[in-house]
Amino acid sequence: MEEEINQEVLGEYIMVKALEDGVTIIGLTRGKDTRFHHTEKLDQGEVMIFQFTHHTSAIKIRGRAEIIASHGKIMAGRD
Amino acid sequence: MEEEINQEVLGEYIMVKALEDGVTIIGLTRGKDTRFHHTEKLDQGEVMIFQFTHHTSAIKIRGRAEIIASHGKIMAGRD
Amino acid sequence: MEEEINQEVLGEYIMVKALEDGVTIIGLTRGKDTRFHHTEKLDQGEVMIFQFTHHTSAIKIRGRAEIIASHGKIMAGRD
Amino acid sequence: MEEEINQEVLGEYIMVKALEDGVTIIGLTRGKDTRFHHTEKLDQGEVMIFQFTHHTSAIKIRGRAEIIASHGKIMAGRD
Amino acid sequence: MEEEINQEVLGEYIMVKALEDGVTIIGLTRGKDTRFHHTEKLDQGEVMIFQFTHHTSAIKIRGRAEIIASHGKIMAGRD
Amino acid sequence: MEEEINQEVLGEYIMVKALEDGVTIIGLTRGKDTRFHHTEKLDQGEVMIFQFTHHTSAIKIRGRAEIIASHGKIMAGRD
Amino acid sequence: MEEEINQEVLGEYIMVKALEDGVTIIGLTRGKDTRFHHTEKLDQGEVMIFQFTHHTSAIKIRGRAEIIASHGKIMAGRD
Amino acid sequence: MEEEINQEVLGEYIMVKALEDGVTIIGLTRGKDTRFHHTEKLDQGEVMIFQFTHHTSAIKIRGRAEIIASHGKIMAGRD
Amino acid sequence: MEEEINQEVLGEYIMVKALEDGVTIIGLTRGKDTRFHHTEKLDQGEVMIFQFTHHTSAIKIRGRAEIIASHGKIMAGRD
Amino acid sequence: MEEEINQEVLGEYIMVKALEDGVTIIGLTRGKDTRFHHTEKLDQGEVMIFQFTHHTSAIKIRGRAEIIASHGKIMAGRD
Amino acid sequence: MEEEINQEVLGEYIMVKALEDGVTIIGLTRGKDTRFHHTEKLDQGEVMIFQFTHHTSAIKIRGRAEIIASHGKIMAGRD
Amino acid sequence: MEEEINQEVLGEYIMVKALEDGVTIIGLTRGKDTRFHHTEKLDQGEVMIFQFTHHTSAIKIRGRAEIIASHGKIMAGRD
Repeated sequence: MEEEINQEVLGEYIMVKALEDGVTIIGLTRGKDTRFHHTEKLDQGEVMIFQFTHHTSAIKIRGRAEIIASHGKIMAGRD
Repeated sequence: MEEEINQEVLGEYIMVKALEDGVTIIGLTRGKDTRFHHTEKLDQGEVMIFQFTHHTSAIKIRGRAEIIASHGKIMAGRD
Repeated sequence: MEEEINQEVLGEYIMVKALEDGVTIIGLTRGKDTRFHHTEKLDQGEVMIFQFTHHTSAIKIRGRAEIIASHGKIMAGRD
Repeated sequence: MEEEINQEVLGEYIMVKALEDGVTIIGLTRGKDTRFHHTEKLDQGEVMIFQFTHHTSAIKIRGRAEIIASHGKIMAGRD
Repeated sequence: MEEEINQEVLGEYIMVKALEDGVTIIGLTRGKDTRFHHTEKLDQGEVMIFQFTHHTSAIKIRGRAEIIASHGKIMAGRD
Repeated sequence: MEEEINQEVLGEYIMVKALEDGVTIIGLTRGKDTRFHHTEKLDQGEVMIFQFTHHTSAIKIRGRAEIIASHGKIMAGRD
Repeated sequence: MEEEINQEVLGEYIMVKALEDGVTIIGLTRGKDTRFHHTEKLDQGEVMIFQFTHHTSAIKIRGRAEIIASHGKIMAGRD
Repeated sequence: MEEEINQEVLGEYIMVKALEDGVTIIGLTRGKDTRFHHTEKLDQGEVMIFQFTHHTSAIKIRGRAEIIASHGKIMAGRD
Repeated sequence: MEEEINQEVLGEYIMVKALEDGVTIIGLTRGKDTRFHHTEKLDQGEVMIFQFTHHTSAIKIRGRAEIIASHGKIMAGRD
Repeated sequence: MEEEINQEVLGEYIMVKALEDGVTIIGLTRGKDTRFHHTEKLDQGEVMIFQFTHHTSAIKIRGRAEIIASHGKIMAGRD
Repeated sequence: MEEEINQEVLGEYIMVKALEDGVTIIGLTRGKDTRFHHTEKLDQGEVMIFQFTHHTSAIKIRGRAEIIASHGKIMAGRD
Repeated sequence: MEEEINQEVLGEYIMVKALEDGVTIIGLTRGKDTRFHHTEKLDQGEVMIFQFTHHTSAIKIRGRAEIIASHGKIMAGRD
C-alpha cells in the first residue's frame, strides 16, 4: 500500500536572474548530511526558477544576481 | 489499494512571453538527479504557461522574455 | 477500494481571447514526457477558458490574444 | 467500500450573458482526449452559469457575450 | 461502511430576482450528459436562491432578471 | 461503523424579513427530483433564518420581503 | 468504533434581543420534515444567543426584536 | 479504539458583564430536547466568559448586562 | 490504539490583570454538569493568562480587573 | 501503533520581559487538577518566551513586567 | 507502522541579535518537567534563529539583545 | 506500510547575504541534543537561502550579514 499526500509541488520557489556571466546556483542536500548535490551555471540575463524539494533544502548563490522570493528581493554579488 | 490526495493540479504556475525568436525554456528534473528533461522553443510573441510538476522542480529561461509569477514580474535576457 | 480526494475541479484556470483568426492553444502533457496532446484553434473574438488537468500541465499560445490568469493579464503575439 | 471527498460542487463557476442571438458555449472533455461533449446555444439576454466538472475542464465561447469569472470580466466576440 | 465527507451544503449559491413574469430558471445535469432536469418559473418580484448540487452544475436564465453571485451582479434579459 | 464529517451545521444561511402579510418561503428538495417539500408563511415583521441542508438546496420567496445573504441584500416583491 | 469529527460547536450563531414582551423564537427541525420543535419566549430586554445545530436548521422570530448575525443586523417586528 | 478530533476547545465564546445584581445566564441543552440545564447568577461588575459546548447550544440572558461576541456588542436589559 | 488530533493547545486564551487585591478567577467545568472546579486569587498587578481546556469551558471573574480577549477588552468590577 | 498529529509546536506563545528583579512566572497544570507545576524567576531585563503546552494551560505573572501576546501588550505589577 | 503528520518544521521561530558579548539563550524542556536542556552563548552582533520544537517550549534570554518574533520586537537587558 | 504527510518542503526559509568575507552560518540539530551539525562559509556578496528541516531547528550567524525572514530584516555583525 502506498499512501502519500504529496505537497512537494506546493513548495516555496525562488527566482534568480543572473546579472553577469558565470553566476552559480548550488543546491545543498536536505537530511542528515548537508552537501552540494547540484550546481547550475547561469550566463548574464538567464533566469532560473526553482523550488525547495525533498532533496534540496538550501541553496547558495555566487555572482551578481537579482533574487526574488516571497520574502522580497535581494541582490547577490559584491557591489 | 491506491490512495492519493493529488494536489499536483494546484501547483504554482509561471507565464513566459518571448520578446524575441528562439527563447528557450528548459525543464529540470525534480528528485535525486537534476538534469534537463525537456526543452521548449518560443518565437517572439508566443506565450507559455506551465506548472511545477512531480517531474519538474526547476526551469531555466534563455533569451529576452517577460516572466510573470506570483512573486512578481522579471525580465529575462541581456538588456 | 477506491479512495480519492479529487481536487482536479479546483485547478487554476486561464482565459484566452483571440484578437485575430487562427490563434492556437496547445496543451502539453504532464508527466515524464512533455509532448503536444491537443491543439485548439480560435477565431477572432472567440474565448477559451481551460484548467490545468491531470493531463495538461503546460500550454503554449500562438497568435494575437489576450490572456487573463490569476497572476494578471498578458498580451500574446507580435506587437 | 466507497469513500469520497467530493469537492466537485466547490468548483470554479463562470457566468456568460449573450449579447446577441446564437452565442455558443461548448464544453470540452477533461481527460486524455479533449473533444466537444456539449453545446449550448444562448439567445440575446440569456445568462448561463456553469461550473468546471469532472467531465468539463475547458469551454469555448463563440459570439458576442459578457463573461464574468473570478479573474475578472472579458467581452467575447468581434468588436 | 459508509464514509462521506459531504461538502454539498457548502456549494456556491446564486440569487435570482425576476423583473418580469415568466422568468425561467433551468437546471442542467452534471455528469456525462448535460441535459435539462428541472425548470422553475418565476413571476415578477419572486426571488429564487439555489446552490450548485451533485445533480446540477449549470443553470440557464431566460427573461428579465437580476442575478447576484459571489462574482458580482449581472442583469439577464434584452435591455 | 459510522464515520461522518458533518459540515451541515456550517452551511450558508439566509435571513428573510417579511414586509407584508403572507410572504411565502418554499423549500425545494436537493437531489434528483426538485420539488417543493416545505412551505412557510410569514406575516409582516416576522423574520426567518434558515440554512441550506441535505434536504434543501433551493428556496423560492413570494411577496414583499427583505433578503439578507452573504452575497448582499435583495428586495423581493413587486415594487 | 466511534469516529466523529464534530464541528457542531463551530456552527453559526445568532443573537436576538427582545424589544417588547412576548417575543417568540421558534426552532424548526432540520431533516426530511420541517416542523416546530422548540419555542422560547423572551421578555423585553432579554437576549438569546443560539447556534444552528443538528436538530435546528431554521428559526422564526415573532415580535419586535433586534437580530445580530454574521451577515449583519435586522429588526424584526412591525414598525 | 477511540478516535476523536476534538474541536470543542475551539468553539465560539461570549463575554457577559453584569451591570446590576442578579443578572442570570441560562444554558440551554443542545440536542433533541431544548431545556435549561444550568443557571448562573452574576452580581454587578462580575464577568462571565463561556463557550458553546457539546451540551450547550443556546443561552439566555436576563437583566442589565453588556454582551461581547464576535458579531459585536449588545446591551441586555430594559433601558 | 490511540489516535488523537489534539488541538487543545490551540484553544482561545484570556488575559486578566487584577486592579485590586483579591480578584477571583473561577473555572467552571465543561460537560454535563457545570460546577466550580478551580479558584485562583490574584493580588493587585498580578496577571493570569489561561486557555479554555477540555475541563474548563467557562470562567467567572470577581473584583476589579482588566480582561483582554480576542473579542476585545472589558473591565470587570463595580465602577 | 502510534498515530499522532502533533500540533503542540504550533501553540500560542507569550513573551515576558522583567522590569524588576524577582519577577515570577508560574505554570499551572492543564487537566483535572489545576496546580502549580513550575516556577521561573526572572531578573530585570531578562526575557522569557513560552508556549502553552499539553502540561501548561495557564500561567500567572507576579512583579513588574511587560507581557506581549497575540491579543496585545499588558503591563504586570503595581503601578 | 509509522504514521506521522509532522508539523514541527512549521513551528514558530524567534530571532535574537546579541547587542553585547555573552548574551545567553537557554532552552527549557517541554513536557512534565521544565528544566534547562541547552545553553547557547552569543557574542555581540551574532544572530541566532530558532524554532520551538518537541523538546523546547520555552526559552530565556539574558543580556542585551534584540528579539524579533511574530508578535513584534522586544529589547532584552537592563537599559 | 509507509504513510507520510510530508510538509517539510513547506518549512520557513531564511535568506542571508554576506556583507564581508567569512560569514559563518551554523546549523544546530533539532531533537534531544542541540549541537552543531553543519557549517557554511560565505564570502562577501554570496547569498544563502535555507529552510528549517527535520535536522535543523536553529541556526547561528557570525559576521556582517543581512538576514531576511518572514518576521522582517535584521543586520548581523558588530556595527
